[in-house]
Amino acid sequence: MPQISNKGKLMPESPIRKLVPYADLAQQRGRKIYYLNIGQPDIKTPEVALNAIKNNDISVLSYSHSAGFESYRKKLATYYKTIEPNISSDNIIVTTGGSEALLFAMGSIADADDEIIIPEPFYANYNGFATASGVKVVPVISSIENNFGLPPVSEFEKLISSKTKAILICNPGNPTGYLYTKEEIDQLAALVKKHDLFLIADEVYREFAYDGLQHHSILAVPGIDENAIVIDSVSKRYSMCGARIGCIVSKNKEIMATAMKFAQARLSPPTFAQIASEAALETPQSYFDDVITEYKDRRDLLVSELRKIPNVKVANPGGAFYCIAELPVKDADDFARWLLEEFEHNNETVMVAPAAGFYSTPGAGKNQVRIAYVLKKEDLQSAVNILKVALEHYKG
Amino acid sequence: MPQISNKGKLMPESPIRKLVPYADLAQQRGRKIYYLNIGQPDIKTPEVALNAIKNNDISVLSYSHSAGFESYRKKLATYYKTIEPNISSDNIIVTTGGSEALLFAMGSIADADDEIIIPEPFYANYNGFATASGVKVVPVISSIENNFGLPPVSEFEKLISSKTKAILICNPGNPTGYLYTKEEIDQLAALVKKHDLFLIADEVYREFAYDGLQHHSILAVPGIDENAIVIDSVSKRYSMCGARIGCIVSKNKEIMATAMKFAQARLSPPTFAQIASEAALETPQSYFDDVITEYKDRRDLLVSELRKIPNVKVANPGGAFYCIAELPVKDADDFARWLLEEFEHNNETVMVAPAAGFYSTPGAGKNQVRIAYVLKKEDLQSAVNILKVALEHYKG
Repeated sequence: MPQISNKGKLMPESPIRKLVPYADLAQQRGRKIYYLNIGQPDIKTPEVALNAIKNNDISVLSYSHSAGFESYRKKLATYYKTIEPNISSDNIIVTTGGSEALLFAMGSIADADDEIIIPEPFYANYNGFATASGVKVVPVISSIENNFGLPPVSEFEKLISSKTKAILICNPGNPTGYLYTKEEIDQLAALVKKHDLFLIADEVYREFAYDGLQHHSILAVPGIDENAIVIDSVSKRYSMCGARIGCIVSKNKEIMATAMKFAQARLSPPTFAQIASEAALETPQSYFDDVITEYKDRRDLLVSELRKIPNVKVANPGGAFYCIAELPVKDADDFARWLLEEFEHNNETVMVAPAAGFYSTPGAGKNQVRIAYVLKKEDLQSAVNILKVALEHYKG
Repeated sequence: MPQISNKGKLMPESPIRKLVPYADLAQQRGRKIYYLNIGQPDIKTPEVALNAIKNNDISVLSYSHSAGFESYRKKLATYYKTIEPNISSDNIIVTTGGSEALLFAMGSIADADDEIIIPEPFYANYNGFATASGVKVVPVISSIENNFGLPPVSEFEKLISSKTKAILICNPGNPTGYLYTKEEIDQLAALVKKHDLFLIADEVYREFAYDGLQHHSILAVPGIDENAIVIDSVSKRYSMCGARIGCIVSKNKEIMATAMKFAQARLSPPTFAQIASEAALETPQSYFDDVITEYKDRRDLLVSELRKIPNVKVANPGGAFYCIAELPVKDADDFARWLLEEFEHNNETVMVAPAAGFYSTPGAGKNQVRIAYVLKKEDLQSAVNILKVALEHYKG
């Protein structure tokens, strides 16, 4: 019998998928589940994007340019000019989701056994893309006590070797919700300059910044044009996760020429989704104002209610729509399974994402969970109540 | 300055893209170009697919299941049951184009420096996916004299080493149009069984078989359930290249579980395109009958007209919509450039794909071009006339 690859064996399972059979079981038993486990917003997609699809007049659904529609890339450039005036459509390649942008970036900068340093906890699929690319993730641990802020630069420098090709951050962070300060971004910029590394910033949650805090894109940092690679996506910005449209943005011409070869091999990003994404750029500001207000209210409710539960510690997220909570349990994996398999409160329960899957250091984050505040406030309130009762009953 | 990866340096350029600047130049000069260079059909997409998109009632464009909509996979299983009755939706993962299906397949079976044997000439992007995956392509040359039929099995066996993980075929072939016989498929099946290799068949042109010839899918061959991996796509079948929907089909459970981990890392295939693809399965048979008749007529015209040009040799393709022509030139790369940059006949010219890019052996196919018969017959006739005049004038 032919054998699968070692890479295939090493590919990580999604930290959430493991729980799906238990969620299915709970549903079969007629239980209502509050899903706090995934970053699928309940927010409506802008009408302008949906209407563009309904009104399309395509008769032959053909390939687009491998870099994406020129018209879309030009409009995207206008969007990025609000961050950095010198961005042009040449600095942008449209990809199939932020996922593909990450794959192209990793493939363009790193060979098998090269290393990328990532502050952990980090978006679990970075592990998957790294494994698929044969690249080694080197974690720098960040701490809930510090709200998951940037670890000291000295911690990064300890880990830099001849194999190190890049530092990768997610800003604001999934799963932490942490929004990096200007000082932190500047420190990272100086670090990558000094060591000739790439700085990859996954900025897909860019618009989701609360409390008047400003998002600081690496595109706006002077002097790192050759180092900076931004990963972006329409998924969260316009609640268009199913579009599968993202982009890679960089002023490094060699990187763009290289990423373009990866883009040509897969021919083009999806055409219908590009039509929707191009139209989405016309979304009125009021849409974002409403969405940000809604997420901020949800975060405030979630964090303050979680903090009322004895022995629960929560980092206060400045952006995105996730937070990490430390629970009075030994093994959040077991707790999350128990919530679905054994527990119910008035025939309801909750599904959370155990945080260990967002760490690469074995044993880290064992007592933490990631909570996505993608449900409306009443539901969040109910979910936290259930969590409180559950923690009272859990024997672990 | 940070350095790009070796992999990035090695990524091949598309053999067609090199010519694009010359085509742009010709257009700027007001020349009409007949595009014989790409596999973008002019055939209309089925209305049932386009209408499904126009009539969609999505309000939140969310992720689908990583394996694709369950409803779509079930209908796809019904389609594959006409080839092999034991296929179920568990044997199918929906991908972002056949491209992603190939990437998942390569990642699931091969590690860096492993080898995949491919009869050449082959679809140029196999080189790109192999380079991106760190996998080595080992070519077995097939010959225009033999219509690009399967090289003798002894030629494959000579190349099999401990590094060999799979044999990859495209059936019917891009760029050759060759449709493998049942005997050839059976020979390959016996070979992969004997050596414990995977057999990957890119069958995206399955429906395009002419002259009453039957397509022989590897799914229908008994005894190779653990070896067979089919790559498929809606791109050509329904003239939906821009959808970017394909799938990987295999009865090997370990392969499907492994490919699923790659699928989870990138979250999901595009939602709108899945809606269109699911609806496309309702396309009436009359659509295919018309399309096949049209392609067959085009092929007959193209091949017979090309054969009238002195010293042009053409393999007669039994399927797909490509043919390879050997021209009385030393360097088809130079000829293709010259056609666009220097030549015109009544202010018209043609764009062809030099075939060297479809070979992996250096120097092979230097005097060959790939011609896609994706234009209507009058245009194909005009294009061949221009090619004839051009060959009379070309000094090389």
